[in-house]
Amino acid sequence: MRALLVVAHGSRRDESNDEVRRLTDKLRALAGNEYQQVECAFLELAQPSIPDGIDCCVAEGASEVVILPYFLSAGRHVAKDIPEIVASSREQHPGLALRIAPYLGQASSLVGSLLEMSKK
Amino acid sequence: MRALLVVAHGSRRDESNDEVRRLTDKLRALAGNEYQQVECAFLELAQPSIPDGIDCCVAEGASEVVILPYFLSAGRHVAKDIPEIVASSREQHPGLALRIAPYLGQASSLVGSLLEMSKK
Repeated sequence: MRALLVVAHGSRRDESNDEVRRLTDKLRALAGNEYQQVECAFLELAQPSIPDGIDCCVAEGASEVVILPYFLSAGRHVAKDIPEIVASSREQHPGLALRIAPYLGQASSLVGSLLEMSKK
Repeated sequence: MRALLVVAHGSRRDESNDEVRRLTDKLRALAGNEYQQVECAFLELAQPSIPDGIDCCVAEGASEVVILPYFLSAGRHVAKDIPEIVASSREQHPGLALRIAPYLGQASSLVGSLLEMSKK
């Protein structure tokens, strides 16, 4: 069973965290054929944490978890913090296939999204 | 003449700012039919600033500038800082059509970009 875990920074503003949760709902609807679970987790300031998010996917039966960094640039969070947290979870789930996908900012389709927004 | 100004937060890491500049280059190639100028500017930590970016578009002949916030959530920067800076530029260019587009995080196509990255 494959799971997709969208990892956002997390915010003190509930509304920003809820935005990530709504986006995750949309992604679940879109990715249902490829991932049996689509969840979100937060680096800080909101729940669930990344380890809790991974644990939850495993508890639901995931044998593979893809971590998807919802970040626009490869700062310290993407380059260091998330890989370290994921490495720690990997030790706790030795049988789990755990992979970090490239961060959102690298998506080639992002220019299309920008053009879409410029018209609104 | 229409100009599109991508506004990013700006980073201490040159690489992150260069990423925004490269994205702007791609957007220029994609949006050439709709915008005669496509540039980027930064809220802080990098150059050009937002007012300088707007001034530059005007100096190049723009009669309309669309500000495109390259942000994933509507925090203080999107809700307050950018509108205040743009309002100030508006006063300095009374004949200019100056509009702030919705921020990138609101693009409906973003879920497709996330799914794209999950496969890489």
